[in-house]
Amino acid sequence: MYEGPVQDLITELGRLPGVGPKSAQRIAFHLLTVDSADSERLANAITRVASEVRFCVRCGNVSEAEECRICRDARRDPRLICVVEEPRDLMAIEKTSEFRGRYHVLGGAISPIDGVGPEQLRIAELMSRLTDEDVQEVVLATNPNIEGETTASYLARQLKATGVRVSRIASGLPVGGDLEYADEVTLGRAFTGRTEV
Amino acid sequence: MYEGPVQDLITELGRLPGVGPKSAQRIAFHLLTVDSADSERLANAITRVASEVRFCVRCGNVSEAEECRICRDARRDPRLICVVEEPRDLMAIEKTSEFRGRYHVLGGAISPIDGVGPEQLRIAELMSRLTDEDVQEVVLATNPNIEGETTASYLARQLKATGVRVSRIASGLPVGGDLEYADEVTLGRAFTGRTEV
Repeated sequence: MYEGPVQDLITELGRLPGVGPKSAQRIAFHLLTVDSADSERLANAITRVASEVRFCVRCGNVSEAEECRICRDARRDPRLICVVEEPRDLMAIEKTSEFRGRYHVLGGAISPIDGVGPEQLRIAELMSRLTDEDVQEVVLATNPNIEGETTASYLARQLKATGVRVSRIASGLPVGGDLEYADEVTLGRAFTGRTEV
Repeated sequence: MYEGPVQDLITELGRLPGVGPKSAQRIAFHLLTVDSADSERLANAITRVASEVRFCVRCGNVSEAEECRICRDARRDPRLICVVEEPRDLMAIEKTSEFRGRYHVLGGAISPIDGVGPEQLRIAELMSRLTDEDVQEVVLATNPNIEGETTASYLARQLKATGVRVSRIASGLPVGGDLEYADEVTLGRAFTGRTEV
């Protein structure tokens, strides 16, 4: 439809997650009209992320240094490890300020349909942290969906064998949610996981 | 929240139209995990659009050459000009294959609240095309909203004074639409613009 570079840009933008053909076109035309300094900043940011950002050798979080900001932070409790699927899950938990331990990023969840088994995840690294660091509790914070639950069950089995305490984040009704509109599985979980008041 | 280059990328992506903080984060993490060749291609496409793409000297459409593909096309009827606000509107009309004339891109619509008056649009260029080219009809295809209608009325007045035929694209119920759910203004337009069968 479009000529040369404009079409190339629309095609490349369309590959990004959550960017459909209409959004790709809208963003491309936006970039056509902004200052070239602005679009240059975006292009540079993309290039720099690819070349400069690496992953923390300890926890697998994104990092500029060998170890990430959280692993380097002496105020974080090293006896507590929270296991998440992706760095963005880690960030979501950080925003709550509820967790003061360290993290371990798996890099995904067990999903046979996508060809992801335990070997593709950073599970061996997690197991060796249990012996190297003085870990007392592992909180499993994988997503509450099929893949996340499968991963949590698998990890729970492996971890319990080492004698460490293992916990799973609670499932139930979201705060501000409506009982009437909750799906049965969530409502069922809310009942199973009820706590005495 | 994030460190250095990742945060920079999220910030730059968040400036794009239709990309909120969550999408910016999602895209940034996607770019972190893809091959550096893929992200390099996106960065290059952005840079090239800024440096290589210009606007057609005749109609204002995006173009790689001095005149755009449509203006250079000898099969297009030069006696018919369709006036649109933006290049993306032009592309939307091209997709219908209903229009075989040429275009004129205004670069926006009259909107006093945004500080856009007739002087900020490519109206003088349109008027001089009427004398330079053998134009017989101008179709006003600005958006059917307040700014677009204001621009169409303004242009209709200016254009009619030159003796050229002026038309406006039809407003009415969208095809596949539902009378019950149509807003009153659209339904009213559909009545005013009714055609004999």
